[in-house]
Amino acid sequence: MGQTITEKIFSEHIGEEVYAGDIVDCKIDMVIGNDITTPLSIKAYEQSGAKNLANPEGFCIVMDHFIPAKDIASANQAKISRDFAKKHKLKYFFDEKDMGIEHALLPEKGLVVSGDVIIGADSHTCTHGALGAFSTGMGSTDLAYAMITGKNWFKVPSSIKVEFIGKPAKHIYGKDLILEVIRQIGVDGALYQALEFCGEGIGYLNMDDRFSLCNMAIEAGAKNGIIAVDEVTREFLRQRKSLRAKPREFFSDSDANYTQTLQIDISTLEPVIAYPFLPSNGKSVTQAVRDDLKIDQVFIGSCTNGRLSDLRIASEILKGKKVHNDVRLIVTPGTQQIYKDAHKLGYIDILLEAGALISNPTCGACLGGYMGILGDNERCVSTTNRNFVGRMGARNSEVYLANSAVAAISAIKGKIADPREI
Amino acid sequence: MGQTITEKIFSEHIGEEVYAGDIVDCKIDMVIGNDITTPLSIKAYEQSGAKNLANPEGFCIVMDHFIPAKDIASANQAKISRDFAKKHKLKYFFDEKDMGIEHALLPEKGLVVSGDVIIGADSHTCTHGALGAFSTGMGSTDLAYAMITGKNWFKVPSSIKVEFIGKPAKHIYGKDLILEVIRQIGVDGALYQALEFCGEGIGYLNMDDRFSLCNMAIEAGAKNGIIAVDEVTREFLRQRKSLRAKPREFFSDSDANYTQTLQIDISTLEPVIAYPFLPSNGKSVTQAVRDDLKIDQVFIGSCTNGRLSDLRIASEILKGKKVHNDVRLIVTPGTQQIYKDAHKLGYIDILLEAGALISNPTCGACLGGYMGILGDNERCVSTTNRNFVGRMGARNSEVYLANSAVAAISAIKGKIADPREI
Repeated sequence: MGQTITEKIFSEHIGEEVYAGDIVDCKIDMVIGNDITTPLSIKAYEQSGAKNLANPEGFCIVMDHFIPAKDIASANQAKISRDFAKKHKLKYFFDEKDMGIEHALLPEKGLVVSGDVIIGADSHTCTHGALGAFSTGMGSTDLAYAMITGKNWFKVPSSIKVEFIGKPAKHIYGKDLILEVIRQIGVDGALYQALEFCGEGIGYLNMDDRFSLCNMAIEAGAKNGIIAVDEVTREFLRQRKSLRAKPREFFSDSDANYTQTLQIDISTLEPVIAYPFLPSNGKSVTQAVRDDLKIDQVFIGSCTNGRLSDLRIASEILKGKKVHNDVRLIVTPGTQQIYKDAHKLGYIDILLEAGALISNPTCGACLGGYMGILGDNERCVSTTNRNFVGRMGARNSEVYLANSAVAAISAIKGKIADPREI
Repeated sequence: MGQTITEKIFSEHIGEEVYAGDIVDCKIDMVIGNDITTPLSIKAYEQSGAKNLANPEGFCIVMDHFIPAKDIASANQAKISRDFAKKHKLKYFFDEKDMGIEHALLPEKGLVVSGDVIIGADSHTCTHGALGAFSTGMGSTDLAYAMITGKNWFKVPSSIKVEFIGKPAKHIYGKDLILEVIRQIGVDGALYQALEFCGEGIGYLNMDDRFSLCNMAIEAGAKNGIIAVDEVTREFLRQRKSLRAKPREFFSDSDANYTQTLQIDISTLEPVIAYPFLPSNGKSVTQAVRDDLKIDQVFIGSCTNGRLSDLRIASEILKGKKVHNDVRLIVTPGTQQIYKDAHKLGYIDILLEAGALISNPTCGACLGGYMGILGDNERCVSTTNRNFVGRMGARNSEVYLANSAVAAISAIKGKIADPREI
């Protein structure tokens, strides 16, 4: 019987053929914690009496949510991870020195590769599926179990095939593709399933777009998002300074089983804006322009859209222009490397000249952490992944999710605008 | 009878000769508010029934303490200033678009000039005395009074003459001079008096050092710090794109009255470190090295030492080096312009390469606001102005105040170190 990529990755890890619905105990290649979830994992780990990590080179902590410390509580919370990293001489510990948002940082560092099974105590761990890996978010105690045993249990997910037809229309990015998918199937449309993205359209997407696409699989309730390896993936991996492990490539069989197949023509798609208060609440940018939505803040950043191409897209649109008087534009590069590269390429200068504020890499504003929280009744266009009630601040503030081009042009116009009109 | 500079500035503003101890009603050239103090001023202003600012071009608001918003409360607080600025079409309103720490930003923008009387609802408003102006901190309701009337009352302060002898020794900066003054006279040594800095030593200081020196006059309880105009001041003012007003120069008469004269030989001075928990608790760096003080964090920034020369000094020391494994180095440029200039000059690249985290301009960590708060028992070397209990975070954390060279070398060594040993 044919298998999906996801089934094949599990089969390879377990050493026998497994299929959707099977409960498996599977070794894990990379376990990811961050500054707000790892302290709970560490507590559970220590309560277990464990002395050593089962697989020290398959565990990393990335300090990204409230770092540099927002307050005393987050400073003390950070100390738990720092002390643990020091005690265990953790090879992969990323603190302020080499900072980045975990889901931007790990692929950049070559710590996640095609064919991996990856878990992280962060819901957007599904991002790494863009490399042709199985990657999913779990709770902190699930993480602790993996720290202790090197394994965890999974129900092998069934898969939904999402086929992108055609070449992306102007200013259509990975973000629009996933917002359209979620618009069509809803926030629980892929519950505990794999979203397998394929089709001609994928070939046109660079890795940044693919990460962005897989990143929001969870917003449709998916267990994981996944894209088969192609030459774009291979080239991305070749460009890493080093790789944690040798990539392994898996491809779905032609007779693999899918619970559902979606076909989306991206050659005619318009940029999608997810209105408050659900990522599934997508409307076309044309509709949003018609709705004349004045804004107070634009945020470009996060594990969804804080990558180099986001900064490139934004700077191309903002070059020689000025951010609207009533708007604050906050740009948060995903990692220090992205920040450095953006400087070398002149993006940062352009953004500053236009009136953007550039922050250090951090999850910051996206989760209502700090560094750009919304006040009462404020409206924000954000390249992030969630627009729930109060997600970025006050309960009566509003977040409109969009791609980086929509975000940039909206910052100039002072209201949600269409980048295709430039 | 001879007059001090401070007495002369008041005399010129009032139109008659006044002396220390006189109570005067004086027009004010520049009134400065920030995001945390101005909302109180605005409330008092509006309660008064006032409709218009007495002198709109002599009032500015700089958003610097909790911006971009740290949380919902600070977002809502910021909105008060934003709405006021919009309603009054405020010419000098500095928000995220053109961000900077008020006492770094105002001189840079040419909004404060020699001969001015300046008040600000921020204790470190005394910084601007470095331009040969009278500048002092006041409460928010005092600010409101000035917003409404364009004036306020003052008791003309008596003056202490502080004469710096000789050429600054290696790695002696404005910061060391003021820490030495405070060490000698104590945190209430200049209560309600002017600290008039003069002598041969001043001639060797660039404007950055002079701002740093006057910035901490308040830490000796002084009403203001002041330095007479010389060619360095004039050149600084000439380099501004525009000036708010024509500078006016005042010089103390040779028979002016001083309550006290201090002479400090800076050619033999060692870098001064103010130990917790008072800025007056100064020790020599030699002593600090002997005390073997391991550190967790180094902070380079603030209205005291977040200027271009601080970033230059730090990058010269950190070039090709790495921040110690156990240390986090946070660098916060004082303004967007400083950040841009530091980039052009390559300082930012050097600092990033060494492992520093570069934040956006903000008061942030200095006041325990956000962006680098200390956890329990953490120790920080900081280029800021206050090391009170809990100033930068947990009550049992410790802050050691130092110049930027000491801060940079300490970040490398992992403990307080002596930059002269490089």
